[in-house]
Amino acid sequence: MSDALTAHVDGFADDRLAAVVAEIEGFAAADPDYSVQVAAFAGGRPVLDVWTGPHLGRDSLMVPYSVSKNTLGLSIALLLERGLVDLDAPVAQYWPEFAAKDKQSVTVRQLLSHQAGLPQATPALTWAELLDAHAAADRLAASRPLWQPGSSFGYHALTIGNLGAELVFRITGRTLQAFYEEEIRRPHAVDFYLGLPESEDARRVPVLPMVRPEIDSAPRHTSLLMPLVWSSPGPELDVANDERSWRFGHAGASGTGSARGLARLFAAMVTGVDGAAPVLSPDTVEVVGLQQVSGYDEVLGQPHRAHSIVFQKPTPALHFGGPRAFGHDGAAGALACVDPDTGVTFAYTIARGPWPGGADPRALALAVEIGRIFGP
Amino acid sequence: MSDALTAHVDGFADDRLAAVVAEIEGFAAADPDYSVQVAAFAGGRPVLDVWTGPHLGRDSLMVPYSVSKNTLGLSIALLLERGLVDLDAPVAQYWPEFAAKDKQSVTVRQLLSHQAGLPQATPALTWAELLDAHAAADRLAASRPLWQPGSSFGYHALTIGNLGAELVFRITGRTLQAFYEEEIRRPHAVDFYLGLPESEDARRVPVLPMVRPEIDSAPRHTSLLMPLVWSSPGPELDVANDERSWRFGHAGASGTGSARGLARLFAAMVTGVDGAAPVLSPDTVEVVGLQQVSGYDEVLGQPHRAHSIVFQKPTPALHFGGPRAFGHDGAAGALACVDPDTGVTFAYTIARGPWPGGADPRALALAVEIGRIFGP
Amino acid sequence: MSDALTAHVDGFADDRLAAVVAEIEGFAAADPDYSVQVAAFAGGRPVLDVWTGPHLGRDSLMVPYSVSKNTLGLSIALLLERGLVDLDAPVAQYWPEFAAKDKQSVTVRQLLSHQAGLPQATPALTWAELLDAHAAADRLAASRPLWQPGSSFGYHALTIGNLGAELVFRITGRTLQAFYEEEIRRPHAVDFYLGLPESEDARRVPVLPMVRPEIDSAPRHTSLLMPLVWSSPGPELDVANDERSWRFGHAGASGTGSARGLARLFAAMVTGVDGAAPVLSPDTVEVVGLQQVSGYDEVLGQPHRAHSIVFQKPTPALHFGGPRAFGHDGAAGALACVDPDTGVTFAYTIARGPWPGGADPRALALAVEIGRIFGP
Repeated sequence: MSDALTAHVDGFADDRLAAVVAEIEGFAAADPDYSVQVAAFAGGRPVLDVWTGPHLGRDSLMVPYSVSKNTLGLSIALLLERGLVDLDAPVAQYWPEFAAKDKQSVTVRQLLSHQAGLPQATPALTWAELLDAHAAADRLAASRPLWQPGSSFGYHALTIGNLGAELVFRITGRTLQAFYEEEIRRPHAVDFYLGLPESEDARRVPVLPMVRPEIDSAPRHTSLLMPLVWSSPGPELDVANDERSWRFGHAGASGTGSARGLARLFAAMVTGVDGAAPVLSPDTVEVVGLQQVSGYDEVLGQPHRAHSIVFQKPTPALHFGGPRAFGHDGAAGALACVDPDTGVTFAYTIARGPWPGGADPRALALAVEIGRIFGP
Repeated sequence: MSDALTAHVDGFADDRLAAVVAEIEGFAAADPDYSVQVAAFAGGRPVLDVWTGPHLGRDSLMVPYSVSKNTLGLSIALLLERGLVDLDAPVAQYWPEFAAKDKQSVTVRQLLSHQAGLPQATPALTWAELLDAHAAADRLAASRPLWQPGSSFGYHALTIGNLGAELVFRITGRTLQAFYEEEIRRPHAVDFYLGLPESEDARRVPVLPMVRPEIDSAPRHTSLLMPLVWSSPGPELDVANDERSWRFGHAGASGTGSARGLARLFAAMVTGVDGAAPVLSPDTVEVVGLQQVSGYDEVLGQPHRAHSIVFQKPTPALHFGGPRAFGHDGAAGALACVDPDTGVTFAYTIARGPWPGGADPRALALAVEIGRIFGP
Repeated sequence: MSDALTAHVDGFADDRLAAVVAEIEGFAAADPDYSVQVAAFAGGRPVLDVWTGPHLGRDSLMVPYSVSKNTLGLSIALLLERGLVDLDAPVAQYWPEFAAKDKQSVTVRQLLSHQAGLPQATPALTWAELLDAHAAADRLAASRPLWQPGSSFGYHALTIGNLGAELVFRITGRTLQAFYEEEIRRPHAVDFYLGLPESEDARRVPVLPMVRPEIDSAPRHTSLLMPLVWSSPGPELDVANDERSWRFGHAGASGTGSARGLARLFAAMVTGVDGAAPVLSPDTVEVVGLQQVSGYDEVLGQPHRAHSIVFQKPTPALHFGGPRAFGHDGAAGALACVDPDTGVTFAYTIARGPWPGGADPRALALAVEIGRIFGP
């Protein structure tokens, strides 16, 4: 299962994916620095588990930035499956302090789809607060939104992790990290951690900085909120590589794991793995994957983004699957997603993502191609 | 009333429309294939009824694709006029099965303005279902929307016909075809049919295929929903020319009639014809013509479309009248509309529409010009 | 306090604003016609009060068009501060006639953020009605909106003045002009009038026409509502220079005053002046400054505008401050605004604005720079 498949690519691939492996081989042959893990399940069976490049190996674990948000999305899905949360209830029903500053009627649905206007607290959050189970959440609950909730949406790049985690805590009495570990990661043997345990430290590899090209033709988007959202007072912190970050396991940005783990995570929840039934019913999968917002993103200034509950939805610029697909990419090229219509789950981690960030276009192409091969 | 007006144009035209007739003559002189009917009423009196070209004649009937939606829009208007439907009521109040899959609070207003997220059922509808009085509607009622209802809108190109027709059925106990025939078409002698009777078959002419230019500079819009919406399982069907389609008379796509009929349809309802009072009060006209949605269309991927209740509203790219005008164009060039502020109703049918489809720009220009001539 | 500061610029400037004064000197040196007043307060203390150019002087008063809307916004803020108005209440709760034509559930929030669909009445308003304390408001209350309230927004360039003024009247029993004069202008010695008293006539200078460049590269925006909104029946009126207009003091367009007055107005309300506490609590400032709408403007046809309660919010194209800043520009170049995060209030009046209108880009740059200098 871990032989050399091609000159540069090691691992396992279903026979139907020969062309996909050849494509990855092409990426690797063209760039000696190219270091990725790519994994996929189809109908709950592993069909792809490959890796290539100098910066990682078969069992390497890495921080894929916002791909970590998939753990929050699937934890919320599990609460929905168990009937423990009502998307149309006010957040304050579960979390009374959240009612402050005219937020009493903000719904769970709005909170979890970037509509609540809380991409930053007032005043801005420190890294110490962001990397705390409750401190940032408490401050966000006490803050006024940055736009009228429900009138617009904008990427809560970090705070969706704190807000979602606090909601899970208020409902279950457990931190998101504990809930995810006990209810999802451990029972399903998922090689993706929210808070890396010391036992796995040896497998961790760093995220390497992106390289800005000399002639930078990447599209620029302007947003007046961007500086506010991204400027945290106090010393800067490397969210992917600083131990304080990945040891804590911020659901918005600093889970740690492998592509194999991420693809298995979605498979366990949506399609079932190892012959087991999926954790989530088809109805719950539809509910968490249903597009809630689409259009201009107030924080990123991008003209067309789309989200379901926590997850990203495909758009023409982020085309990772069909209309019912959902998942999340990361700031430095990684991606994990599922398309319920094809039964394919897909994950891609990369040591050094391509400029200017967001899902590596190669990852998007692979996800769509694998879906086509196994789809109906 | 049916003499030759110019070298290529036959029919009748009010004296004030000499320039308009000259314009149509110009279109015809420039293109020997150009085959259109153009009709208009002003203040309830016919002011234009002309035709030209090799592919149709004075009394030809044709399928103008989505121009057929005007019959649904005006049927809903009639229910509003009679106080039989409340736009702000949940659809499920009239149609209990529609409440499935979290659709219990979707309103009639949302359903009829392309906001319900049902441009396709899950799984996709067959042509046999689409061309059935209830089958497609039943399946749509059982389906989950493709986006959170009310959060976005996208053109329900075919299904608005099935959904609207079922709503009419639930309220009146009659199919839309019967309701339209009995309450609107026959009483007002409208030469536009929803389900062509055999007695009129001899007048029917086919819609001819558009010709894609060698150098195609038409703008492309991408939408991930488009393939899903347009792919119906099973054998393909020519919606404009297949007898199963126009004999059924799908309110979204396959009514059959003349431009004269369409202009008279709007006139009977909005301004009155033959000295009779209009069927609809000015208030009802305002209500059905009021813009409900404007902006990005999730299905077409176009950046700016706008709808009132069922109808299209003018936009800079679809400029057929003033702010209170409404109507609907068709996929292959046809258009029918009314502008309550000018009292002009306008219709245009065309045998072979210009690439890439939607309202023929010549039709838009004529509609605006006639409005200017008879307007206040 | 009123010496020559530079070759062309007179007045007073805090030492920290030497570069700002040099910038204004540069504008003046480059254009002998350039005639502006620029004023700023920081933390409630005047830090800039300069003027330059042949068309105005130290104490000149001018009509800055829509900059006048700041008086309405701050009057509403005062009602909020006193608990006299509920933004989420239906307008009809205060103004029963407003419920006509299905407007019974339009909220104060929607009305004051350009969402009510009333940029024009049906039929169109005359100047005599617009320049009357109640006539236009009565007609708007009786009109149907031009879009479904809440579904979109579009600049109510003039009517927001009439609508807002009537709301103030219904709540306080006083015209907006009287309320603003008695509660805000006089107590805080603000040199900006809503209805210029004869005692100040001698200080008034006219607004000069903008000059359209020979090669006009200004972006064009199309909107089908624009002609309707801007065409008032009856004789045209020069809203900035006709005595009927500035004597009345239309809150949407024809207040009269100096930049010094406008900067002081914001300072008195938001930061306090002369050692006094600010009139508005920080919470009220947050509430009136909170973005309510963002995106396509149905009236202007511009792709990205944003409003809070009455005020404009900064956008990339109208960048006058940070995310919590608010204010309003005018059709011929003027601007007044406040940024609660920097404590800076800023105002800029100009005799002849640059083509094609809206805030002079020079004003935007100065506002941002002064905010940077005094900000945290």
